[in-house]
Amino acid sequence: MNSNKWDVIVVGAGFAGLKAALELKESGKQVLVLEARDRVGGRCKAGEICGNTIDLGGQWVGPNQHLLLEQARAVQVETYPQYTQGENLLYLNHKLSRYRGDLPRLPILSLLELGLLEQRWKRQIKSLNTHKPWLGKKAQRWDSQSIESWLKSNVFTDATREFVRIITRALLCAEPNQVSYLCLLEYMRQGQGLESLINTRGGAQQDKFVGGAWQIPYRMSQQLNDCIVLNSPVRGITQNDTGVEVSTTEHTYTCQHVIVATPPGLATKIHYAPKLPSQKWGLLQRMPMGAVIKVHVAYEKPFWRSKGLTGAVVSDSHHFNILFDQSPDDESVGLLVGFLDGAHAIEMSAWSEKDRKTQITQDLVDYFGRDAANPIAYVDQDWTQEEWSLGGYVAHMPPGVMSQFGDALREPVGRLHWAGTETAQQWCGYFDGALESGIRAAKEVLQAQQ
Amino acid sequence: MNSNKWDVIVVGAGFAGLKAALELKESGKQVLVLEARDRVGGRCKAGEICGNTIDLGGQWVGPNQHLLLEQARAVQVETYPQYTQGENLLYLNHKLSRYRGDLPRLPILSLLELGLLEQRWKRQIKSLNTHKPWLGKKAQRWDSQSIESWLKSNVFTDATREFVRIITRALLCAEPNQVSYLCLLEYMRQGQGLESLINTRGGAQQDKFVGGAWQIPYRMSQQLNDCIVLNSPVRGITQNDTGVEVSTTEHTYTCQHVIVATPPGLATKIHYAPKLPSQKWGLLQRMPMGAVIKVHVAYEKPFWRSKGLTGAVVSDSHHFNILFDQSPDDESVGLLVGFLDGAHAIEMSAWSEKDRKTQITQDLVDYFGRDAANPIAYVDQDWTQEEWSLGGYVAHMPPGVMSQFGDALREPVGRLHWAGTETAQQWCGYFDGALESGIRAAKEVLQAQQ
Repeated sequence: MNSNKWDVIVVGAGFAGLKAALELKESGKQVLVLEARDRVGGRCKAGEICGNTIDLGGQWVGPNQHLLLEQARAVQVETYPQYTQGENLLYLNHKLSRYRGDLPRLPILSLLELGLLEQRWKRQIKSLNTHKPWLGKKAQRWDSQSIESWLKSNVFTDATREFVRIITRALLCAEPNQVSYLCLLEYMRQGQGLESLINTRGGAQQDKFVGGAWQIPYRMSQQLNDCIVLNSPVRGITQNDTGVEVSTTEHTYTCQHVIVATPPGLATKIHYAPKLPSQKWGLLQRMPMGAVIKVHVAYEKPFWRSKGLTGAVVSDSHHFNILFDQSPDDESVGLLVGFLDGAHAIEMSAWSEKDRKTQITQDLVDYFGRDAANPIAYVDQDWTQEEWSLGGYVAHMPPGVMSQFGDALREPVGRLHWAGTETAQQWCGYFDGALESGIRAAKEVLQAQQ
Repeated sequence: MNSNKWDVIVVGAGFAGLKAALELKESGKQVLVLEARDRVGGRCKAGEICGNTIDLGGQWVGPNQHLLLEQARAVQVETYPQYTQGENLLYLNHKLSRYRGDLPRLPILSLLELGLLEQRWKRQIKSLNTHKPWLGKKAQRWDSQSIESWLKSNVFTDATREFVRIITRALLCAEPNQVSYLCLLEYMRQGQGLESLINTRGGAQQDKFVGGAWQIPYRMSQQLNDCIVLNSPVRGITQNDTGVEVSTTEHTYTCQHVIVATPPGLATKIHYAPKLPSQKWGLLQRMPMGAVIKVHVAYEKPFWRSKGLTGAVVSDSHHFNILFDQSPDDESVGLLVGFLDGAHAIEMSAWSEKDRKTQITQDLVDYFGRDAANPIAYVDQDWTQEEWSLGGYVAHMPPGVMSQFGDALREPVGRLHWAGTETAQQWCGYFDGALESGIRAAKEVLQAQQ
C-alpha cells in the first residue's frame, strides 16, 4: 500500500470524514481514510444494555437536520419519535415540579425574563455575520465575555440565570464561565435558535434512529470498506508543491490533498511540515472539548410512564441533571438516558463506576421516588477519557478566541483542508454539522483537483 | 541503554527539568533527561547579531528572583544592569511623550485611576489564597471574567484601560479578552505585585546576564551531560505499581518516577497509560501558550542615548510596542530588543521576515525619528512557530479554568510529577518559577523514593 498514490487522504472516520470520503469517491477520486480507533463513527458509538442496542454517543435528530435525515435514508436507517407523552420533571431550587412542553415552569418573573431573553437572543443572533460572526463592535464585546459574566450584567432573576447555565452545560458540556458569550450565540444561530436546539417536538431531540444512530456511520463505512484503515493514528503530514505525505507509526502514504476531519484538539497531535500558520495552530490549541459522561439506567418497566411522566428531567442541583426516556416501544424494559456534563463529568470521571451508579440512582430516587431505587442495569460512557475524542459533545471557544483565531477555522492550508462538526456553518456540534463540513471539504478538494 | 533502570526520568531540559535533574543527581539518584529538541534551555535560547551573543528567549532577572540569581552564581554567570539612563518614550493615543521611571505619563485622571487601581490590585492580591487562589466567592467571580470584561465594568478612563491591556500583552503575550482576570491577579501575586513585574530598577527587568541567560541552562546541562538525551521527544508514559516505562520513537526506558517538565500543551502530546485523570487531562488542554516574536534591531551606534533616551518605548498603537536598549556596554553597536505580542505576534508570524523588518523599522522611525531608518541588522525569533514550546512566554488560563481544573496543576498522578514554570508558586512565567518547580518536583520524588 505504501507505494500507492491516492488522490485524497481523509484523517478521521467520524461522520465528517466518512461523508467527505463518500463524496470524493462518488466523484471518481481514489480516497484513503485513516482512522486512529479500531472502529468508525467518532462521537457516534454502539453499546448494549439488557440486550438492547444503544447509542453511547450522539443519538437524536431534529426535523431541520436535513443532511443527517438524508444520510440516514440513504443507508436505510429509520427514525421514530422521542417519547413525550405526559409531563416532564423540573427540580429547581430544591423543589420538584411538573411541566408540559419544552419550557419548564419558572417563577413568573423569571418566565417573563426568559421570554424577553429569548427575544433578545433572536435579535442578537440575527445581527451576527453569517460567515464571520466575530465581525462588528457588538460581536467583539460579546466575545470578550464569558456566558457567566454576561449573565451577571444582563439577566437578573435567579431562575433565568440558572436556566441559562443549565442550557450551556446541556448544549456545550462546559461551565458558563468557560465559554465565550459570542460562541453561545453563534452556536444558537447554527442550531436555528434556542427552541430548535432544546426542544423535543420540532427540535433537535425530536427523533431517534431505529436500531441506533451508530448504524449510519457504520453503513457509510461499508460503502468505503476497502478505503478505510483502522488503528492508524496519523503522526505526520508533510506537504510540498507536488503533493502530501501522510505518515502513521507504520506507513507513509502519499496523496494530492488531505482532509483533516478530527476534533481541533486531536489535530494538534499531528506533526505538520511545513508548520501550520500560527493563527491555525493557535486556534487548534484554544478549542477544548466539553466534558460529558453519557449514562443509561435500566429498570424492569418504564414505571414513570404509568405515572403520567415522560421520563424527561431537568435539575439545577443534581449530578444527573438532564435525562430522557430511552425505553424500547414494546416496553420490554424501562430505560432512562442522560448526561453528566461540564464540571460534574470531570468530577465523576474520577469516581468508580460503582460510585457513579450509586449517586445516579440516588438522583433518580429524588426525581421518581422509590420505584427508581433498584435499577437492573447500568452502563455509562465517559467521553472525557476517550483518547480519540478528548471529550464531547463538541469543542467550544473560550472568550476572545473567535475574534482572533476564527478566520483560520475553515481556511485551507496549502493542500490541507479541514472538516469536523466544529467547522460547520449549520449545526456545529451535531452530526448534521459534521456531514455539512465533510461535503464542504470534499467540494474544496474537488475544485482544487479540477 | 534500553535495559537500564533509572531512578527518575525527567521529560524536558528547560530550566525546570534541568534543575530537577541536578537536585536528584545531588541526592544520589540515577537520572535521565529526555529532551525533544537538539538543544537544552527550552524558552531560553542563544542567538547572534553583529557578532554579539544575544538571548532569543528570556533574558532579564529581578532582585527578588533569588533562585535564578543563585543558579546563575552557581554556574558563574554574572549580571549587569539594564540601561536606564535618560527618559523613556510613550506613544499613547497617537502622541509621543517622554517620561522618567517606570510609570508612563498618563492624563491626570488616568494617573489617579491607575494609582487607585494599583491599591485595589494590592488588596485583591493579598486576599488570594496562596495555594488555591480560586477559593472564595470573590475569586470565583474574578475567574468568571476575562481581563477585558473586568476592565469594562471596573476601570473608566481610556488611558488606564489601555495601560492594563498593554500590561496584559506584555506580561502574558495574550489579548486581555482571552485571559481570566483571576489568572492575572494570581500572576501578579506570584511576581510580587505589578511594580515588581513591570519595573526595570527593582523589578523583573533590572538586570541581564553577561554573555546571555542561555549560558545558565547550558552550563547546568554540562553538569548533567551524560544524563541528557537530545532529539528524543517522549511519545508514551506507562506506569504500574512497580515502575514507569517512558518511550520515545526509538527507545523505551524504565524508571521509578517521572517528572514531566514541559509546558502544559506539550504534555498533551504524550500518550499516558493508564490515562490521566480527566481533571488533569482537561487542564492540560485548557492552558494555551501566549504568542510572542522577540525582535533585535541593530544600528551603528545607540543613537538614542545621546538624545537622552533610555531606548525603552511603550506604545498602544504600533506592532512593535514594547522595547528596551540591548546595546553592549562598549557601545560598539546600537541594539534594541523588543516584542511583538498577542494578536500582533499571530498576525506577523504569517508575514515574511522582510515584511516584519520593514514594519518594525517604520515603528522605530515613529519613535526615534529618521536616525532609526537604517538598521544594520535584524534578527527575530518567532516563538509561535516553535514546535517544542508552542509559544511564549507562558501558558495562561482562560476564564473558568482555574476554578475547575486548578487543583490538578501540581498534583502528582501516581508516579508522575509535574514541573515547569506554569506549575510554580512564585514567579510563574519566569525562569525563577521554573527553577522553583523543578526543586519542588525533585523533593516530591525524593520523598516518594525514601
